[in-house]
Formats: sequence, C-alpha cells, structure tokens
Amino acid sequence: MESKKEIVIDWFKGLQDSICESLEEMDGAKFHEDLWEREEGGGGRTRIIRGSLIEKGGVNFSAVHGTMPAKIASHLGLEENQFLATGVSIVLHANSPHIPIIHMNVRYFETDQGDWWFGGGIDVTPHYVIEEQATMFHQHLKSVCDKHHPEYYHKYKEWADNYFYIKHRNETRGIGGIFFDRLNQDVNTLENNHAFVKDVGSAFVPIYKKLVAANKDKEVTKEDQSWQSIRRGRYVEFNLVWDRGTKFGLDTNGRTESILMSLPPVAEWHYAYDPKENHKALKTQSLLRKGIDWINFNEKSLSEN
Amino acid sequence: MESKKEIVIDWFKGLQDSICESLEEMDGAKFHEDLWEREEGGGGRTRIIRGSLIEKGGVNFSAVHGTMPAKIASHLGLEENQFLATGVSIVLHANSPHIPIIHMNVRYFETDQGDWWFGGGIDVTPHYVIEEQATMFHQHLKSVCDKHHPEYYHKYKEWADNYFYIKHRNETRGIGGIFFDRLNQDVNTLENNHAFVKDVGSAFVPIYKKLVAANKDKEVTKEDQSWQSIRRGRYVEFNLVWDRGTKFGLDTNGRTESILMSLPPVAEWHYAYDPKENHKALKTQSLLRKGIDWINFNEKSLSEN
Repeated sequence: MESKKEIVIDWFKGLQDSICESLEEMDGAKFHEDLWEREEGGGGRTRIIRGSLIEKGGVNFSAVHGTMPAKIASHLGLEENQFLATGVSIVLHANSPHIPIIHMNVRYFETDQGDWWFGGGIDVTPHYVIEEQATMFHQHLKSVCDKHHPEYYHKYKEWADNYFYIKHRNETRGIGGIFFDRLNQDVNTLENNHAFVKDVGSAFVPIYKKLVAANKDKEVTKEDQSWQSIRRGRYVEFNLVWDRGTKFGLDTNGRTESILMSLPPVAEWHYAYDPKENHKALKTQSLLRKGIDWINFNEKSLSEN
Repeated sequence: MESKKEIVIDWFKGLQDSICESLEEMDGAKFHEDLWEREEGGGGRTRIIRGSLIEKGGVNFSAVHGTMPAKIASHLGLEENQFLATGVSIVLHANSPHIPIIHMNVRYFETDQGDWWFGGGIDVTPHYVIEEQATMFHQHLKSVCDKHHPEYYHKYKEWADNYFYIKHRNETRGIGGIFFDRLNQDVNTLENNHAFVKDVGSAFVPIYKKLVAANKDKEVTKEDQSWQSIRRGRYVEFNLVWDRGTKFGLDTNGRTESILMSLPPVAEWHYAYDPKENHKALKTQSLLRKGIDWINFNEKSLSEN
C-alpha cells in the first residue's frame, strides 16, 4: 500500500502528465523534458514547450527531500528536520498578446517532525485586462473554492491580491486569482485538504482553454506586441524582485533553469513608457490594483472601490 | 563660500553635465531630461538617451536629504539622523553586441551626526569578453587607483568581483572593475577622498571612448544579436535579484523609473540556452569568473587560476 506522501507525489506526477498532454493537443508542439536529480535527495521533471500557441512555457514537477538547510528551516520557523517538498509549477507565455500569461503552483510539504501542509494558487496576467474574462476566471475559481469551504475564495483571493503585487510600480501583476499556503485545517484531514488541491490543479486546463478560445483569433498589431513586451518586463520585475518562491529558490541552490522557466521569451524596458493612444492599455493600467470585486464587477463597483 | 557638501554636490552635477556632453557628441542624439523632486527633501536630474550608438542609456544625478527612514538607518547601522545622499549613476547599453555594457556610480553620503563617506565603482559587462580589452580596462582603473593608494586597485577590484556576481548562475556579471564603499580613510581628509572619487568619475569617458572605438565598426550577425539578448537577460537577473542598490531603492520608495533606467531595452530568456558553435560566446562563459588577474593576464595565468 502507498503511504500518504506517495499518493500525493503520484497525484502531482499524474497532474503534470495530463496538463502536458492537454497543452500539446492545444498547441501541436511537444514538450522537451529534462530529468534532474538533487545531490542532497530527490529531483524533478522539467518540461518546456516552445510552440505556436505557447511561445514559451514550463510545466515542472519536483519532489525533493533530505536534511533541511538551516536557512530554510529558520525561514519556515521549524527545527532542524528531514523534509519532503513536492509540487507542480506552471507558467505559460502565449504568442498572442491577447492571451494572458497564466501561472499555477500546487505543492505539498512535510517533515519527520509531523509538520505538513499544502500550498498553491492560480493567477492570470492579461496584457490587456478584459473585465468579462476576469469575472469568468474568478467565478471559476470561486466555484472550486466554494465546494470546499465558504471562506476559501474570499480569503485566498485577497491573499493573491497581496502576494502578486509589484510594490515599486504600485500595481498588481495581473488580475490575481487565488493563493494559499500552510493549508492543514484542523477541521479537515490530509485527504480533505488534498481534495481541494486536486480540484485547484484540475481547474487549470479548463480555465486556460477558455482564455485561449476567447482570445486566440484576435488580430495582433505592432502596438499590441510592443505593449506585450512591456507587460512581460513587469512580469520579470515581479518574479525577480518580489516573488518569494523565486528568490528563495535562487538563494538556496535550487535548479536555476527550472526556477527561471517562468521568465518570458523576451521583454522590453522603455524609460517612463507611455501607451499614449492605446486605450486598452490605459484601461489595463487602471485595473491593475488590489481589492477589485471581479465576481460582482461593474463600472459602478470600480468607482466605489 | 560653499560648504563642503555643496562643493561635492556641484562637482557631481558638473560630472553629469560633462559626461552627457561627451556622450551626445559621440552619439549624435540628445539626452531627454526629467527633473524630479522627492517629497521628503531633495530630488534629481534623470537623463536618458536613445541614440544610434547607445540604444538605451541613463546618466542620473540626485541629491536627496531629510530624516533618514528607520529601515535605511538600521541597514546602515546608524542612529536616527538627518542625512544627505548624492551621486551620479550611469548605465549604457550600446546597440552593437560588440560594445560592452558599462556602469559607473560615484556617491557621497553624510549625516548630521558627523558620519560621512564616499562610494562608487566602474564595471564593464562585455557580451563578448576580449582579453586585451579587459586588460586595457583594468590597467586604466589601476592607474587611477595607484595615484591615490597602493592598495586601492587590488582591494576594490576584488570587491567588484564579489559584488557583481550572479550567484544563481555561478558567474560574474562581466569582467568586473572596481567597487568601493564607506571610503573615509583616517589617513586622509574629505578632500583627499573626494580627489580619488573625482579621478574615478573623470575616467569614465576616456574608458568608454576606448571601448567604443575598438568595437564599433565590427560586423554584427544575427548570432551576435541573439547572444547579446541572452547576456542582457543576465544583466536583468543581476540587477533585480542581487544588486543591493537596486533592491534597496525599490524597497524604500525610490523613483522607480530612475532606478530601473539600468535595465536593457530588450532581453531574452531561452530555457537552458546553449551557444553551440558560437566560440566567442563559449570563451566568454569561461571568463565570467572571480579572481582573474586581468593586469597580468595570459592563457597560462588563467589555467592556474
């Protein structure tokens, strides 16, 4: 019989497989896979796609274990221990500026001292924010959350707003989504928590399919591409300056190429960029902020915000 | 009569003016200037050029003062105080992949508690490292340093090697240069320290002119441009992940557009990029490491390193 952690690991591997299969079907291109091992224990399967729909994307699985480095233990507020950290991380940069950048991470952590928790989230970074699509995306997440706990969506939506925030730009990375960590509710068992994480993981493909279908046939202008490069630059700024996962991985000898698969294929920086007459860009700038109630969104709710 | 700090501030302003003038002469394009004020005191002159020789460059002067934020005071190991921080910061990204990225910063800091020091440095990031040019650059810096103290070059060259280091890539940003901070030697007066900083600042234009003259007429291939975009990506990684000045500025409400003028116009990230048959790129990768004695460089000294 499999131990609980083996069940979780196998589920993550299966999630990676099924997501890669769906994305290959959508794109036509195939993933390149690198298997890697960590000297101190465990390893991963890094999978990268460069296709026609997805310009650059990564769908990574890893399960690392061993003696926890002192730096990490102190960061987590734990004693020295033997740990396991496993999960799936995804970032997709589509070719079209009309298709949002999407990110998902689902993860599980435990120590031989009895600590364990799940974490994760999905968030979306449209180059152009389209209100109806933002509402659709948040409704999808809310329905996943509501199946498990009436407070989850509200709590994890707020957490995402605060986490995916580019402080030095005073703007959110995109339209947020959900973000959660240290999920090990007393009221639930490991299995119940895992069930929530499974539903989050399984929501990825249907959500991305909807976003792709709604935007993939839109005409792309030079202005759109230029704006996309600027927004990709902001994505780089968030990931390298503020994302705790990225910083922590780079600071603790994680596998650099797997961590930085999240960076876009190309990004631009123009001093004090002004989108001028690009009205969709100007609207987007006005919507990159915390606390927007996308479920009940309308122009009125925004002005009251 | 001017106070000492007024003399220092005026010298920095004059340095910015003379460097901008020389660069405009070299490029043909003109700098765009933004004057800005800091709510809590002071301000700056941000100057940006987008030309034919220099694809994107910034030459910034600032002089900010006021009550030191607690976060900064604690970071510097100082009590609460009234401070002045002033200096000139430059980053130039040339169009040609054969012309190195160059960076210079010279700065002065003082508090009303009697603390004061200078800091600064010049470093160069060639997309392709050419040994003779690296040696020429370091010889130029050494001659500036040797005029002031026999230990300066050795000490500040090592400091630059350690500072301009991309830990998660296990490579230096470029061929280093010099870096120094808290310069207020007991053996010298403020004027003597200032004299060194003046010589560093005045070395910028002659050094850049030599690097431009040696490389500007070289043919540029698609392979060169692609490699340049990858190296610019590494420059972004250093500046956003490891550069303490950048991180600190972004974290303490500095003027974001002035701080991030250092980022290249465009950068690329390819998963596990392999320069394949690009021999100059492969050689460059092998030379991006600490501790190379560029003054006495030869193939033999490298293999012994």
